[in-house]
Amino acid sequence: MITNHSPETEGFVFNQTMLRIRDPQASLAFYTDVLGMTLIQKLDFPDAEFSLYFLGYVRNEDEPVPNDRTARTAYAFRQKAILELTHNWGTETDPAFRHHNGNVEPRGFGHIGIAVSDVDAACAWFETLGVTFVKRPEEGRMKGLAFIADPDGYWIEILNPISLANMV
Amino acid sequence: MITNHSPETEGFVFNQTMLRIRDPQASLAFYTDVLGMTLIQKLDFPDAEFSLYFLGYVRNEDEPVPNDRTARTAYAFRQKAILELTHNWGTETDPAFRHHNGNVEPRGFGHIGIAVSDVDAACAWFETLGVTFVKRPEEGRMKGLAFIADPDGYWIEILNPISLANMV
Repeated sequence: MITNHSPETEGFVFNQTMLRIRDPQASLAFYTDVLGMTLIQKLDFPDAEFSLYFLGYVRNEDEPVPNDRTARTAYAFRQKAILELTHNWGTETDPAFRHHNGNVEPRGFGHIGIAVSDVDAACAWFETLGVTFVKRPEEGRMKGLAFIADPDGYWIEILNPISLANMV
Repeated sequence: MITNHSPETEGFVFNQTMLRIRDPQASLAFYTDVLGMTLIQKLDFPDAEFSLYFLGYVRNEDEPVPNDRTARTAYAFRQKAILELTHNWGTETDPAFRHHNGNVEPRGFGHIGIAVSDVDAACAWFETLGVTFVKRPEEGRMKGLAFIADPDGYWIEILNPISLANMV
């Protein structure tokens, strides 16, 4: 394991993963209602006609999200594991518009992954909400591991750390 | 701000972002030496001819990385902000092989982002190492914000939370 890192990188934080979305109404409902994230900040850029949405899991034990707009934005930029969704205005009204989800050729980005305490319970919850499954826990060789798709078709791995670690 | 989430999502953790890589030697050097991440775990799947690399920032104040193989794997699966790199064996010997970085049509994934205390100092460090810049801090309208590219051409935003929050 490589543990020595250059002093120049001290304090670096893996803050965000950015995905473009077609329809913010659909994506926000998915990431907040289905996956339980909190919308921490929304930033609008009218001149360039796009908006950014910053989401993440905010737990009681975490630093509280500030109310002040600028402080809240800085908060979103310094946390670990923030999902940034970029909406270029107008794509939501084009029924043919599609993003590249990274899993068709040429491939690249694969997925984001959510660790959960109970994959079957989480997937039962997703089923009641009509979420699209790429792989149900009982399918394929990797039992107990699931993949769902968000409204743009991006893959989301649903995993239990302990059971998956015992499988690989 | 949406703060209520369903009890079914309690304990969900945004654990990982997965990117496919062409050449693990180049990517590991980049993410550990240049960006200062720690390689937490490597998993090989000889039957399917691929390997997974799990990287993240491990700080002194964080939970220590276990030595036991399975415990270390579970650790990698439960932390926030883990970068999972997938290497399908053989791509590194094909000079023409390229991944889709999400920023050419059809677009999708945009970038990952690293928060740093001093963007100019970080970029000076990257310059000495010959890192490819997509946008230097002094270029464009967003002064003080940089984008670099990893060995596969994936974009990495280099941002300072406070200065960026004051700009947007």
